[in-house]
Amino acid sequence: MELRSGSLTTGLPARALADELTDTLYQCRGVRIERIVSTGQATPEGQWYDQDGDEFVLVVTGAARLLIEGEAQERELASGDWLLLPAHCRHRVTWTEARPPTVWLAMHFARAAPSQA
Amino acid sequence: MELRSGSLTTGLPARALADELTDTLYQCRGVRIERIVSTGQATPEGQWYDQDGDEFVLVVTGAARLLIEGEAQERELASGDWLLLPAHCRHRVTWTEARPPTVWLAMHFARAAPSQA
Repeated sequence: MELRSGSLTTGLPARALADELTDTLYQCRGVRIERIVSTGQATPEGQWYDQDGDEFVLVVTGAARLLIEGEAQERELASGDWLLLPAHCRHRVTWTEARPPTVWLAMHFARAAPSQA
Repeated sequence: MELRSGSLTTGLPARALADELTDTLYQCRGVRIERIVSTGQATPEGQWYDQDGDEFVLVVTGAARLLIEGEAQERELASGDWLLLPAHCRHRVTWTEARPPTVWLAMHFARAAPSQA
């Protein structure tokens, strides 16, 4: 791997986009690090994320609301807030701040045998 | 693993401390995620970090300067700036902003066979 660098908070869209932007910053041995930029997107009604591996997610800028299956209340996430979502912890994003865009840092971990991934 | 959550930017020291604060947020299968709070610390003169695994590091708040061995100039890091440091990329932190504290998110990856870690 080569040395790489960047900024999570530059190159942000000036207006709301139809879809989220996802950039993969690192992918190696079952680990994937992504920057995700949301401009108002939410998980479609009735859909849930249900992932085979653990996920670490951080709100870098902006704000979001996230619902964990089985919890009565959505969680409010602001800049600096992080969550560790175990594999198969079903969740959905119910709201993201569009302006300024909401920037997430997400790390996905393979559930099994990451050295083979 | 259980669902966990927190904020990288709360519970910060009100004044400079003698040592950096390090909290491990996640440790599993050769991956370790840490929050590190610096209040002016730097790598002691003549010392280098030289790690067996890749590292991803993000400045969440504050600012820092980092020198990569072989580079003429220190790199200036501000909030949102990240680096991917390959294993054995020798580097040292030459300065960190003390007030407000500099908050880092660091991810360390085992070099080999993370599933055995």
